[in-house]
Amino acid sequence: MSDTDPKNLREAAGLIRSGKISSVELTMAALDRAKASRERLNAFIEIEEETALAAAQASDAALASGKALGPLHGVPLAHKDMYDRAGFVTGCGSKIRATHMATSTSTVMQRLEAAGAISIGRLNMSEFAMGPTGHNFHHGRAINPVDPERITGGSSSGSGAAVGGGVVLAALGSDTGGSIRLPAACCGVVGIKPTQGRVSRHGAMPLSFSQDCIGPLARSVEDAYLLLQLISGPDGQDTTCAAIDPPGALTSDLSSLRIGIAGGIFADNLDAETAKGVEIAAKVLADSAQSVTAATIPDFSAIAELANAVAMAEAGSFHFDWMRDRPEDYGPQVRMRLSQSLAIPAPIYLRALQARSIMLEQFLDAAFAKADVLIAPTMPFVVPLSADVDVGSSPSMNAVTSAMTSLTRPFSYLGLPVVTVPVGVSAQGLPVALQIIARPWREDLAASIALHLESRLAVPAFQSMSTLNRPAA
Amino acid sequence: MSDTDPKNLREAAGLIRSGKISSVELTMAALDRAKASRERLNAFIEIEEETALAAAQASDAALASGKALGPLHGVPLAHKDMYDRAGFVTGCGSKIRATHMATSTSTVMQRLEAAGAISIGRLNMSEFAMGPTGHNFHHGRAINPVDPERITGGSSSGSGAAVGGGVVLAALGSDTGGSIRLPAACCGVVGIKPTQGRVSRHGAMPLSFSQDCIGPLARSVEDAYLLLQLISGPDGQDTTCAAIDPPGALTSDLSSLRIGIAGGIFADNLDAETAKGVEIAAKVLADSAQSVTAATIPDFSAIAELANAVAMAEAGSFHFDWMRDRPEDYGPQVRMRLSQSLAIPAPIYLRALQARSIMLEQFLDAAFAKADVLIAPTMPFVVPLSADVDVGSSPSMNAVTSAMTSLTRPFSYLGLPVVTVPVGVSAQGLPVALQIIARPWREDLAASIALHLESRLAVPAFQSMSTLNRPAA
Repeated sequence: MSDTDPKNLREAAGLIRSGKISSVELTMAALDRAKASRERLNAFIEIEEETALAAAQASDAALASGKALGPLHGVPLAHKDMYDRAGFVTGCGSKIRATHMATSTSTVMQRLEAAGAISIGRLNMSEFAMGPTGHNFHHGRAINPVDPERITGGSSSGSGAAVGGGVVLAALGSDTGGSIRLPAACCGVVGIKPTQGRVSRHGAMPLSFSQDCIGPLARSVEDAYLLLQLISGPDGQDTTCAAIDPPGALTSDLSSLRIGIAGGIFADNLDAETAKGVEIAAKVLADSAQSVTAATIPDFSAIAELANAVAMAEAGSFHFDWMRDRPEDYGPQVRMRLSQSLAIPAPIYLRALQARSIMLEQFLDAAFAKADVLIAPTMPFVVPLSADVDVGSSPSMNAVTSAMTSLTRPFSYLGLPVVTVPVGVSAQGLPVALQIIARPWREDLAASIALHLESRLAVPAFQSMSTLNRPAA
Repeated sequence: MSDTDPKNLREAAGLIRSGKISSVELTMAALDRAKASRERLNAFIEIEEETALAAAQASDAALASGKALGPLHGVPLAHKDMYDRAGFVTGCGSKIRATHMATSTSTVMQRLEAAGAISIGRLNMSEFAMGPTGHNFHHGRAINPVDPERITGGSSSGSGAAVGGGVVLAALGSDTGGSIRLPAACCGVVGIKPTQGRVSRHGAMPLSFSQDCIGPLARSVEDAYLLLQLISGPDGQDTTCAAIDPPGALTSDLSSLRIGIAGGIFADNLDAETAKGVEIAAKVLADSAQSVTAATIPDFSAIAELANAVAMAEAGSFHFDWMRDRPEDYGPQVRMRLSQSLAIPAPIYLRALQARSIMLEQFLDAAFAKADVLIAPTMPFVVPLSADVDVGSSPSMNAVTSAMTSLTRPFSYLGLPVVTVPVGVSAQGLPVALQIIARPWREDLAASIALHLESRLAVPAFQSMSTLNRPAA
């Protein structure tokens, strides 16, 4: 493979289905890339070569006997290390769960298997999904494929690195305050944080059960959206999963869509290149959408604190026994953050939960008054240097976490669907990313806008699939 | 009226329906008793004479034109001061809500109105339903009709006093940790705390939304059960109300029922007369039930603390703004208890909530292993003297609250249905009460046992209806 590598999931599945390439060939190539990327990306906690090849062989055999399993039949993917599969380890990027063997399979992994996908391994992540920079005390940080001195973002750090680095076309991540969007933005790929309740969390590691969302990172909007469609929908195993069908088809006709440019905290204190990214996107959209106007954002000064109170209170309850019995097995930053959770009074937590629906209503009324989707930067600055944000449990820990998530966390709290997509390249060659935010359940609108920006702005894929496949070529 | 006063709700409704007595006559008699009891019982915060008489006249007119509205057509009742009715005050036994006018009607009050009942007024209660003794800083304590030096119990203090004192045949109360059962026990009447989720809380003042239950206090098991049936059942206005039909008919055949005598905390440290009450009840039941055996109770040493953490955390969130803006408007004990809520860490609250289903399962497996219903005392001691437990916000506050609720709070936490019924009279003439606990949704079994005990033990009604009606007779 090289320039003939399939460029997206549909092409990969199509090549397999038509017999032009086998699942074993594609899977071996992905495994080769994964192994070759070990030092360069540190994206994998475990590369599952043996089981992946066995699954690929079974895929090829099934196809030969006329059984195509689904839209991803035989296509290799990878996933953040937090989704149970019976008989496999779910390590959660931690020491505490490093050898924890799952006895049943999470709904998202069941659905990807049912679609025919092959899992080639467990991806690096911030310990227990806590940490927006992608640092990991136990496994080391995943490395940004665009610039090794830069962070990948987190917590789905390995997902960002593996997809951005061209190891796999797409990977599952999870997002509680930005954990899909930040690594997608830092690594120059697409990420979708779905509407709260869109995707079942059955069998997934919880961080904050009120805000956790599972979603895809991918090298294109269409691939990310396809994965989202495959993992979405009602699930009797998760009572918090809504009885709502997967999102519908994307549209290329934007003529009836009104775009709002988010103001307030989403416009203040941006660095110049980030502000430019929003401006360029707005200009492109002005050509095709019905309107592009400024969108009023209600006073959001408290929202980060509310969202964090909810997240940390819930994380603190999940980690309570381990924090009591084996605190030394956490990395210093995660331990420090979890210990802070005990300082959140229960009435404050409940108030923060109760304020959520009120603020959502206010936000929808104000920001979507004249808009069907909003655009806002994913981060207020270009991808930070790892050294600048590698603060461990130092006093600047909370400031770094807050700054990184300042533009993503509000939409976690509000439960809104967001697509993040690269819209530009900084002077230093780093990706600049945009969030596209829709009303609940309207991932289709956000992704249609993202698709348009992707095709019009033609932001380069930062690493081709073959770069890593043929390092010596 | 005097000895011809109707002795129960069915009789009262029957007399009205047959024209032997009018709703106006019955309602006026109840209003007279209410007014005559003012100083003696302090059971009412407001006697609603004008609206009650107008409603009674309307009842009589409806009947005259052939429209009988329901099973309580024209029968006067009263209710704890915490259920909204459009155009009436819901004072919650507080200063803060003393003049708060409701704009819509709670589901329980709608259902009683639909059954034809007349409301004669709002009953005294512990401020915001916080306090198991029945003291109230703003309105003064309700007075025990059996012995004025004794507490009524709380928080449904006025409900206990008005029903025990013969002002009304039955009244609504609410129970979050014992607030129906304690005043029923102290005032010598029957009380039912239903299964969590059995009765809609729409339009009712919240204390602890995970544990609040609305239920009746009445002068007989049948009356209490009839009220429960009338207020039970699904309600689209309250998503926490279960889609389960009201409980079914009582049975007098106990031959297939196995009775468990609760051990552990329910048997330790009882005073002699309370222990005797359980013994007598067990003996009576041995004659009719299939079996009476000792029931194993799991380690409950943590349950009161868990239940209290949940209750206070939720109360603290509801009262947050008022505690910040006007703390001086609370009574000292309620203010002190609410301020303690800020010391409950959110992860502890969440853990306490999560432990609930686990402890319920353990409890059902252990305690109901050889029993269909359990019996246990309602309080570990006979009715305390008011002076002994009038501790305000002193250091002994938490100890008094804990002791009063030690045998009732566990079943609030577990969400189980409980009927409390008098089973004896102490040497000092005070009522001794028994809790009968069933599995979820089996109020019918608990009430059938209570009915049997009521008929076999013939504990005297402590105050006849006429005592107060004709004080000069």
